[in-house]
Amino acid sequence: MPVKNIVVLGSTGSIGKQTLDIVRHFPDKFRIVGLAAGLSSELLASQVEEFKPKYVFSKDESFPIKTLKAKTRFARMEEMVSASETELVIAGLVGAAGLSPILTALRHSKTVALANKEPIIMAGEHLMTEAKRNHGQILPVDSEPSAIWQCLRGETSPVRKIILTASGGPFRSAPLESLKKVSPEEALHHPTWRMGKKITIDSASLMNKGLEVIEAHWLFSMPFEQIEVVIHPQSIIHSMVEFYDSSVKAQLGIPDMRVPIQLAMTYPERWENSDLPSVDFVKAGKLTFEQMDIDRYPCFKLALNAGARGKTFPAVLAAADETAVGLFLKKRIGFMDIPSLVESALNAHNPVKDPGLEDILLADSWAREFTSNKVPV
Amino acid sequence: MPVKNIVVLGSTGSIGKQTLDIVRHFPDKFRIVGLAAGLSSELLASQVEEFKPKYVFSKDESFPIKTLKAKTRFARMEEMVSASETELVIAGLVGAAGLSPILTALRHSKTVALANKEPIIMAGEHLMTEAKRNHGQILPVDSEPSAIWQCLRGETSPVRKIILTASGGPFRSAPLESLKKVSPEEALHHPTWRMGKKITIDSASLMNKGLEVIEAHWLFSMPFEQIEVVIHPQSIIHSMVEFYDSSVKAQLGIPDMRVPIQLAMTYPERWENSDLPSVDFVKAGKLTFEQMDIDRYPCFKLALNAGARGKTFPAVLAAADETAVGLFLKKRIGFMDIPSLVESALNAHNPVKDPGLEDILLADSWAREFTSNKVPV
Repeated sequence: MPVKNIVVLGSTGSIGKQTLDIVRHFPDKFRIVGLAAGLSSELLASQVEEFKPKYVFSKDESFPIKTLKAKTRFARMEEMVSASETELVIAGLVGAAGLSPILTALRHSKTVALANKEPIIMAGEHLMTEAKRNHGQILPVDSEPSAIWQCLRGETSPVRKIILTASGGPFRSAPLESLKKVSPEEALHHPTWRMGKKITIDSASLMNKGLEVIEAHWLFSMPFEQIEVVIHPQSIIHSMVEFYDSSVKAQLGIPDMRVPIQLAMTYPERWENSDLPSVDFVKAGKLTFEQMDIDRYPCFKLALNAGARGKTFPAVLAAADETAVGLFLKKRIGFMDIPSLVESALNAHNPVKDPGLEDILLADSWAREFTSNKVPV
Repeated sequence: MPVKNIVVLGSTGSIGKQTLDIVRHFPDKFRIVGLAAGLSSELLASQVEEFKPKYVFSKDESFPIKTLKAKTRFARMEEMVSASETELVIAGLVGAAGLSPILTALRHSKTVALANKEPIIMAGEHLMTEAKRNHGQILPVDSEPSAIWQCLRGETSPVRKIILTASGGPFRSAPLESLKKVSPEEALHHPTWRMGKKITIDSASLMNKGLEVIEAHWLFSMPFEQIEVVIHPQSIIHSMVEFYDSSVKAQLGIPDMRVPIQLAMTYPERWENSDLPSVDFVKAGKLTFEQMDIDRYPCFKLALNAGARGKTFPAVLAAADETAVGLFLKKRIGFMDIPSLVESALNAHNPVKDPGLEDILLADSWAREFTSNKVPV
């Protein structure tokens, strides 16, 4: 593979940092064209120092743009992803902020490694259409859709069903009553995966699994009724596909986001990387499966429902959840207030059929405001 | 897919009968060009009646060739597999008998669905060379190599290792001492798979797993040290592949040989067949893994050793085992005499380096005679 030119959106977040770890492991194989981050200015500055990108974006207005190496200049995310030298965009932002740069990248026929789930929840149809129309490509990075993508590789026949696995989160066996009192610290303690904060809270509520169902629906053109979720506490099987001949394929591994990130970076090749751990099946001993107790996870139910209803409901779901999770992390609401707030927003929402991007962004900001206003300051 | 013309070698055996079940399920998709069987004349006659093949072969001299429908005529296996209309040969014979017709099919650029393991053990290099040279194709039918083949589909990068799963057979937890007294009836009671007699005994001794290691070595050009075996008593995971990026792919299913047989028949497509059972992962509950206790399975050790030594050793292994299993089924020797006899043959054998087919067939008949002569009449 010749050197690949990469833009990393969200370079100071969990996905971004792991992406740069992989770049460090293969220094001759990747060139960082652009880095974009939110508020971690110090880390971003040191990344700029190390990788000397052509473009940098910081949301932080105090970012020391003046001290940058002469060769790095400030650029909007849309500019760096559409630059002619950019080949691959790692979409590792959190929440709706990634929508515009991802759409821009696809419109410029770039490959987008999609870790940032919310944009495809909000505007799945738009993303898929833009990708198709402009020969852009979306490669999944989230471990479950990456697993499905790997299982489908080389297969030419339709699929009977997708089986998404779910660890069940840290509260799988906790008494239902106790969930109201869960602290952010407890919810941030995921049993198997180390991830960013927002997705970790979403994993505890299983909102994340609901969002993945919607994501899989779009990425793999799969009707909702052909997507199943099964609880698999060990998170070794990352997801499975059942074909019409009853053959099932699964992708497995130690829970480590660097594996799916690296695959999206090296695709169609797979590269040896001694940093990545292998599964020892004898040591693992067993892989278990349980039915999902849907009453335990109201967020999951809300997501499925919003996905099936379509229109602007998924955008409201994603925005209300993002807002509610932010409030929970600031300890302004309880863990079980997350589904309540999301449900209120969905109930109060006036949906738009066949929404344009404008409608989606309006629904997004409406849901954020609605959700914030529900909580006393 | 247009109608596919099929020859079934071993049509009255386990693989052959299941192949014909699939043909019955898709009557417009397959045409039986030839049927070949050993001694089950009555069943073969009824199959001829039903499928009206152009060619039939029976090892039984009393086969009522005269009463055949006018359109069916007697033919040697080599003739039917090389006939111009033949497209796919289901190689479902037991033991070395399949070698010559399989080689003939490959030389005539046919596709061979390989259930019959011994020929590739004896003459792996010859089979692979003939296939390559003549653009013949070998599609695995055995569940483990079929699983690996499915996992490799569409992948373009080399493989770190193949992980073959083994149920461990019916005696996985029996006291070692008790194995000497095992009856054919007990050994024929496989915990998860319903198969022919010879392969079921080989599965109980784990000779079968050793043969599969050699088979995988040839089919997937994989060095022996990159092939692992793990005990997986549920036989749901049929085998796995680990790539160099530490990603693992597995193929799973209810143990049912019709799934890999059908895939070899419909490849590259996969067809819906309501006869084939789906896995219910919640019902299955768990998949477990154990290290293989190699002292429990001397046949496995002998097979690995013969495979690694190469030359004519694998041919001797296969022939001595086939003979010993026959003697065990006739109750002329005990279960643990199988590895003893195979080991004696391997020790007494005078190997030929870079053997030609002639050398292999000589080693085969030498080993059969040697093994038979070891046992008092």
